[in-house]
Formats: sequence, structure tokens, C-alpha cells
Amino acid sequence: MKAKIYKKVCEFDGEPKDSDFSLIEEELPSLKEGEFLCAGEWFSVDPYMRVYSQWSPVGETVIGSQLAKVIESKNEVYKEGMYVVGYFGWRTHTICDGKTELTPGFGQPLIVQPLESLPMSLYLGALGMPGNTAYFGFLEICQPKAGETVVVTGAAGAVGSLVGQIAHIKGCKVIGFAGTDEKVDWLKKDLHFDHAYNYKDVGVDQALKEAAPDGVDCYFDNVGGEMSSKILRHMNSRGRISVCGSISSYNASKNEEPKASLVQLPLISKELKMEGFMVMRWLDRWEEGVKQHLNWINEGKLKYKETITEGFENMPKAFKEMLKGKNVGKAVVKA
Amino acid sequence: MKAKIYKKVCEFDGEPKDSDFSLIEEELPSLKEGEFLCAGEWFSVDPYMRVYSQWSPVGETVIGSQLAKVIESKNEVYKEGMYVVGYFGWRTHTICDGKTELTPGFGQPLIVQPLESLPMSLYLGALGMPGNTAYFGFLEICQPKAGETVVVTGAAGAVGSLVGQIAHIKGCKVIGFAGTDEKVDWLKKDLHFDHAYNYKDVGVDQALKEAAPDGVDCYFDNVGGEMSSKILRHMNSRGRISVCGSISSYNASKNEEPKASLVQLPLISKELKMEGFMVMRWLDRWEEGVKQHLNWINEGKLKYKETITEGFENMPKAFKEMLKGKNVGKAVVKA
Repeated sequence: MKAKIYKKVCEFDGEPKDSDFSLIEEELPSLKEGEFLCAGEWFSVDPYMRVYSQWSPVGETVIGSQLAKVIESKNEVYKEGMYVVGYFGWRTHTICDGKTELTPGFGQPLIVQPLESLPMSLYLGALGMPGNTAYFGFLEICQPKAGETVVVTGAAGAVGSLVGQIAHIKGCKVIGFAGTDEKVDWLKKDLHFDHAYNYKDVGVDQALKEAAPDGVDCYFDNVGGEMSSKILRHMNSRGRISVCGSISSYNASKNEEPKASLVQLPLISKELKMEGFMVMRWLDRWEEGVKQHLNWINEGKLKYKETITEGFENMPKAFKEMLKGKNVGKAVVKA
Repeated sequence: MKAKIYKKVCEFDGEPKDSDFSLIEEELPSLKEGEFLCAGEWFSVDPYMRVYSQWSPVGETVIGSQLAKVIESKNEVYKEGMYVVGYFGWRTHTICDGKTELTPGFGQPLIVQPLESLPMSLYLGALGMPGNTAYFGFLEICQPKAGETVVVTGAAGAVGSLVGQIAHIKGCKVIGFAGTDEKVDWLKKDLHFDHAYNYKDVGVDQALKEAAPDGVDCYFDNVGGEMSSKILRHMNSRGRISVCGSISSYNASKNEEPKASLVQLPLISKELKMEGFMVMRWLDRWEEGVKQHLNWINEGKLKYKETITEGFENMPKAFKEMLKGKNVGKAVVKA
């Protein structure tokens, strides 16, 4: 059995390039007692892969999660035919023992149940890491109350599109910023956003003067940078900011240190609380978020969209396009 | 009775200038029933006066607190001979009725007891607003634990010098940044700071590599700007940042929007919490901070320093010099 594997050739510098990756083939040995073999069916591309080089050192497999099927097993827990979500990196086939973490800190492969009428790829999106990022990162850090005004940037992305809908479910007024008219239409027509703007056409000040004349109470920040500094200036006293991502700065080159207007003055004068997080903080409550989202999807309250790229070989392409905001909803790659 | 009053002539733009203020005299009427007359003995100059123009509109008296003596009274609560701390603004004599707030949101004049062997000006410093800013703003927001490492910027100022000492009392390792060698000496020799640096000579990265090789747990931010962005990059996972001031940007000119390296990336990767505050949040616990500081001073655990300017007429000078960091400890003006 041969595995195809994408290795990271060098540190990213500016926008990722094809030459940052090399696709190799590796002959896998036969299974030892306790091991099992997984075949990836869906692969995730996410913004964090661009920035956290500590998890993806040069020379190693690019970090990432996948929805995989156990196709052979000498393990009593992970049996043939089961599905798992594993942090195996960008590789088609993987041998695990259910004990060794393939990415330290990300735990063992998670066994997931087949979904009756929904695509299994949702375990990489609304029912997986992006889903729990939205669920816990918004609810725990922003502590939104019904009637409050919530702003989401990167609002049409895998996480942002869920945050806006969760805010709506919780009775908040939701304002989203995204980067194309198509995304803005989707947010307004399908996802119950009260207001949505293409930030390339409408400035933050103009948009929020119109959509949030009484100020913003919660801000879910996916983008960082000047846009976030501007949004902070529209916040109400004791507002909460959940800092999930800083995608505006992810493609910066090595010698460039992105700068933005200071956050300190609005933080002080409005007594704002701003907290960054990584979703693994809530690993012990993982099932809670997944079950809630599955219920909301089945009740028609939570909608999702996927941007699907075909073929494992196209992972770098899917990754680069996601970083440029070409995806609507979750970007996934189909094996 | 004539009151001398400093009025604000125009909005500040860059460093405050003498021409931003005008000194006028106002004839005060005789007291009506319920009123009392205060004579300022000590006046405070503080960084917030530079930035919060909503409290100090053009044409009005410059905002500020003073330690004043009641020199005449037709009020049953505020009696002749009593001392008060009042937000009367920059004016030598003031008539109050004990009901109308002279600065909205800042409450009524606070009656304070004579201090046996300490200067009454402490009610504008360690036993007043800066004291409680340090006490509540550090302890409540940073939630420091014994053994943790605490960084303070503006460390030799009215607030910072107290924060560092409180951190020391609570069993933390304390690292301070200040802007002159004289200040650094004071922090190290008199105030029990474990490390102190003149940031004009030693960069943040070099200093913290030496003084905090295991990272920083709490940061009390008085300065904002690039220095704070740099310090965030030295913080440990789940670190806490109390944002008290942004003095590095206070003297910016109107058309200049100070920028600094993004805070979002360290906030996310270290899961940091950053919260701004204004001390009036803890108005209902005011006495707690004052009493604790008075005890610590009497026990020799908390030291203070004052930079005294003589003469009410010199308030603009004292204010400008404080903003330039020429004070050590609390900057006050003696009537």
C-alpha cells in the first residue's frame, strides 16, 4: 500500500506557492498487532495551517485533519469499516496505533458515526473543528445575550458563517463582513444575517453607522488588522471580542510585520475584553458542540455550505484559494 | 472670593501647548443654603486628561481632581474644616451643593480624613484614583498568582510604581520598564522590582529574554503601541493583560493614527485575555483599596514618591512634563 504525502519544503513566505510543497509516495509496511490503516476520504484546508509552523516543521508532513475510513485493522477499538477524524496531516493513507498522537496535542483519531442524510465531510466543518470553534469560541468568550448586536468578520467562511447563525439562534442582531457580493447574498438570503457587507465596497464606519447605530456588543474576529481596529471603535461599553483568527495578516511575508491602529484606546475607554483562543481548550466538551450543531442542522436552523476541490493532488490549490477567500463556507478536498 | 480657573481653549493636537489653556478669574457668589466652598490645596495632573475630551469640552474647565478644604459651609454633611477629594477641574475655589456632580459620572466630593504623618496629597495618588487603578486594575483583571511573572510599563509612574509593588507583595516576579536611569534605579533599589529597564536603552526582546526566560504571565499596560505588541509575544499561554493606559499614543496629533504590530496573532496562539478598564468600575469598593494601601504604607510594604510642582498657575507646565515622563511617581501641584 502506497501513501501519497505532501511534505513542507520550506517556511511559507507571503502567499503559499506550489514550490512550498512536495508530493511524495511512501510504501507503508504491513500492520503490526494493535495498528490500523486509515484511508482519507475528505481532507480539510484551514487558515491555521498557514501560521502555526510549530506544528508543521519544514521537512515534515503538512498539518491537517481528515475524515478517513479504517480499511484494515489489528486494533480492537478502531475496527475495519469505521470512520475517524484524525490529525494525520496531508496524506492519503495512515497507519495508527490509537496511542501515539500523530500531531502532539491533537489527541487520538476520533471515531465518528455515519450520517444518515448528510455528507461525512461535515465532520471537518460544522460537526468538527470549525463547528466547535464557532460554538465555544463565540458562546464562551462573547457570552452573547438576546437583543445584543454581534459583528462577524470572515462571515462567509467555515467558522464565521456558523457564528452568525448561532448568534441569530440566540436572539442577537447579526452583522457580517465578507469579501464578495456572492457571499454577502448568501449571508443575507440564506443565513438570516440582519446586515451583511462586502468590505471591499463598503467601509466599516459607513456600514456600522447604518447597521449598528446603537453600537456593537460582541465582535467575533476572524481577520485582525485595520478592519478589527475600526470595528473596536464602534463597540459599546463592556463589549466582548473573541479573537479567532487574523487572516488579514496570514499571508504576510517574513520581513513584513503587519501593523494596525492601536487597540488600546478603545479597549480602555469602552472597557472592552478581548480574548484569543484555540478550540482544543474545549476538547473535553467536544461532543456537546457536535450534537448541538447536528440538532440545529436537522431542525433547519443551521445551514452549511462547502467548497469542494476534487483530488488529493489539488490540496495546495485548495489551500491557496481558501487563503484568498475564494471558498464560500468550508473548504474541503475530496480524495 | 475669586476663583482662578483654567479653561480649555481648543482641542489638544500633539503635545499640549500653553495656548491650549486660558487662566481666568471668576467672582464667586455668596453661599446659598446647602452649599459649601472648597479651596484646593493639592491638584492632580494625570494622563487621562489628555485623551478624554468628552469630559473636558472646549470652553469648559479642564477636568481634574483636587484635595480641597471646606473653608465655608451652609451644608450639614460637608462642614467647615473638612477635607474632600473632588472632581472640580482645574480651579482654585469651588462652590458645591453635595448633590450636583461637577464632572458627570465621577460622583460627589469624597470626604477624607486627615492623615497623621503622611501628606494629604496621597489622596490624589496611592490613596486615591491612581492607587485604586493599580489595586483593582491589576488584581481584578490580571488575577496574579504567587510565583508568576508580571511586566509593568510606565513602571515609575503614579500607577505603575504601585502595581509593581502590589505584584511583589503578592509573591510575583516583577519586571518594570521606565524611561530614565533615575527611575530604573528607584524601581530596583527602593521598590523591590526584580528587574527594571530603561526602554530607551534596552529593547523589550533583549530585556525579557534575560528577565523572563520562562515567559510573562501578567502584563499591566500603561503605554500601548509597539512596546506592548512586543511584550505580548513574550507571554505564556493563558496570560492576562490589563490595559490601563496608552500613553505612547496620547500626544499624537489629530491627523496621525498611531499604529503598531497586530496583537491578534499572539492573542490567539497564546490564548491571551486583554481587558481595558476605567477605575470608576470599582467605585463601590473604593474604601477597600484605600484602606489596604494605607495599611501597606504604614507597614512599610508600599512606597510612594511624588513629583511636586509649586503653584496653581503652573498646572499646564506640570501636565506637559508629566506627559513627557518627567515625573517620578505621582505628579501633583501644590496650591
